[in-house]
Amino acid sequence: MSASSQSPQRSTPTQDSVRRQNLGALLRYVHVSGDTSRAELTNQLGLNRSTIGALTADLAGAGLIDEGAPQETGRAGRPSLVVRPRSSRVYGYALSIEVDRLRAARVGLGGKVLDSRELPRPAGTAVRDTVAILAACLDDMQRAAPADAVFVGSGIAVSRMMRHGDGVVRMLPPGGTGGGTTSVGAAGDLGAALGLDRPPVVGNVADLAALAEHTRGAAAGLDNVIYLHGDASISAGIIAGGRRVTGHGGHGGEVGHMVVNPQGRECGCGSRGCWETEIARHVSLDRDAVLACVEAARLGDPTARDAVRQAADWLGFGVANLVNIFNPTAVVFGGALRELYLAGATHVRGRLSTMALPACREHVRLRTPLLGDDAPLVGAAELAFERLLADPLETAEP
Amino acid sequence: MSASSQSPQRSTPTQDSVRRQNLGALLRYVHVSGDTSRAELTNQLGLNRSTIGALTADLAGAGLIDEGAPQETGRAGRPSLVVRPRSSRVYGYALSIEVDRLRAARVGLGGKVLDSRELPRPAGTAVRDTVAILAACLDDMQRAAPADAVFVGSGIAVSRMMRHGDGVVRMLPPGGTGGGTTSVGAAGDLGAALGLDRPPVVGNVADLAALAEHTRGAAAGLDNVIYLHGDASISAGIIAGGRRVTGHGGHGGEVGHMVVNPQGRECGCGSRGCWETEIARHVSLDRDAVLACVEAARLGDPTARDAVRQAADWLGFGVANLVNIFNPTAVVFGGALRELYLAGATHVRGRLSTMALPACREHVRLRTPLLGDDAPLVGAAELAFERLLADPLETAEP
Repeated sequence: MSASSQSPQRSTPTQDSVRRQNLGALLRYVHVSGDTSRAELTNQLGLNRSTIGALTADLAGAGLIDEGAPQETGRAGRPSLVVRPRSSRVYGYALSIEVDRLRAARVGLGGKVLDSRELPRPAGTAVRDTVAILAACLDDMQRAAPADAVFVGSGIAVSRMMRHGDGVVRMLPPGGTGGGTTSVGAAGDLGAALGLDRPPVVGNVADLAALAEHTRGAAAGLDNVIYLHGDASISAGIIAGGRRVTGHGGHGGEVGHMVVNPQGRECGCGSRGCWETEIARHVSLDRDAVLACVEAARLGDPTARDAVRQAADWLGFGVANLVNIFNPTAVVFGGALRELYLAGATHVRGRLSTMALPACREHVRLRTPLLGDDAPLVGAAELAFERLLADPLETAEP
Repeated sequence: MSASSQSPQRSTPTQDSVRRQNLGALLRYVHVSGDTSRAELTNQLGLNRSTIGALTADLAGAGLIDEGAPQETGRAGRPSLVVRPRSSRVYGYALSIEVDRLRAARVGLGGKVLDSRELPRPAGTAVRDTVAILAACLDDMQRAAPADAVFVGSGIAVSRMMRHGDGVVRMLPPGGTGGGTTSVGAAGDLGAALGLDRPPVVGNVADLAALAEHTRGAAAGLDNVIYLHGDASISAGIIAGGRRVTGHGGHGGEVGHMVVNPQGRECGCGSRGCWETEIARHVSLDRDAVLACVEAARLGDPTARDAVRQAADWLGFGVANLVNIFNPTAVVFGGALRELYLAGATHVRGRLSTMALPACREHVRLRTPLLGDDAPLVGAAELAFERLLADPLETAEP
């Protein structure tokens, strides 16, 4: 009777874990929502006033929040103190490795960008050189950061596919998906190469754009979201029940290679009639190309009008399939798909109404991103703060 | 200074919530895994030995588990006590409303079926009559249950689509999906009609079969699973990251209406070339029809062999699309799809290898269900125990 010979007791680690959980929940709330009254925190977190008081005291003591009087409301009664995320005490790095550029930002609590850099990524730049350029960016920003600010983590958005099952980050060649992937390296090695003392958290561009739009953008407050990213190919970031759907190896969301036409054109992936290939037969999935075509159509060019109509029709075709599969609350059209959707919304909606089941489509909202091209970087910043929000006091220790 | 004028303290409700959480985690573990040693519980739940001792004492006191000496292991040293779910003290009802039959079971902890009934559901039986038949079944089983056993909840698997967003359960007509749905009623009214003192938790057949195979069946231990249910139509139960993906209104998984052939046959849903329609052009998605065709093909009938080949080819076509979208670890072929998959596995795998991206397909396992036709009922039983597993002691109170 190995264990029962000890007296039953509540274990201390368990109490600590509750405190950590509550501190994390409160800090996450103000990180996402900004200034929040104590009264609202009490309601939203389901904790009593004295617990909220103890938690805010701890977080203020660690320099993570400030408390202050609210703006004059004109209402009678003593107003509730307002809790604000403090953006200067801790920071994360958000990085974005895109097809043609590299971006890096130093980001504070509340998602505030404190410093940022952007550099072109010339075609054919080797992965090792890409990482060296980003390391120099980080070094530069690090020097400019206040000496007492604490680094809490980093997130990287990688364009094209990657995996996180085995911790090795891989990029697909821009041209297609049938060929081999390029190993960017294990997340740990990547951290070392970037001069960071802990491994970055890595996600692909569509996943992180979806996370960003779900947290702070066009789909804020919606728990079932498909974010479609058009950028030569089409990939999706999927949020189901409020959580990211990334699949076994992090490869989920390759919706561009859903085959929609057995008689369609050959695709670089080796298949035929992929969704992205059928759209690209009419309008190349490159933002400049889409913009040029849409503008020509607007000016009355019949070929361009037909191309927009057909491409938008195929866009709606695939969206209807995804709506039947996921029953989402929102579909967000990002990257080059934004312009195509805006120009051809009627055709997209037409396909949705004829192809999607009424029950699956009846609550779906079609939207364009609020965060634009910053979405992957904003999503990467959310990853950078995950560790802090899981254990605020320990992580914020200098 | 409303809240901070009170002294900071840890609130009692919070400690209780940890205890509830730990009790639930321990009970869930033995409910799913069966007999488990205290040593394994200590490892798996990350709690210390004295906490495990206190938790098992509480659960044993409530009659939910038994503890005892393990089987002789032959190993040296004092063996760890074994914790067993006790199946007789509490029970849930699992119900299944299928196209052609009704099933009901009284189920104990650990998933043990204590009593069960099965009745035909003649074609055209009105929903109200269906519910009355099930109510009589429950009444009958209730009479046979021990007087001191405690009812903890019920789950219902409903064939065809339903919604849980607004709490109203709807069934689609067996013939198609374009027409109107039949309201089975709000879950609360349904509970009252069934003579239950709390509303049942409702899920559709494919979702609950997926939950069952993920919890106790062919996909146990796998967190990214697509369960395909063939039964006149094709629907999917989807598990991503260990959680059910049901969508905004519970309508997700209508994969049978993913359009795979713009030049295909008209579907009952009003669209054309739906995945299920393209398969059914070759072999009707009815188990008897599939079995007959597969048997004829086995005996060398050339028409039947061609039909199996073509239907399996289309089956693989849709599976490849889903693999690209979800990057699952397992795809389970249930209902009528089981026989079609077994007969045409080569063609399914052929499509997968040419249409799915290597990264998405490399770890996927194709499987048949372990729980067979019981899967929806087993899944409904899991729903029935959700409340108990969230708060064991309170729920098990007589």
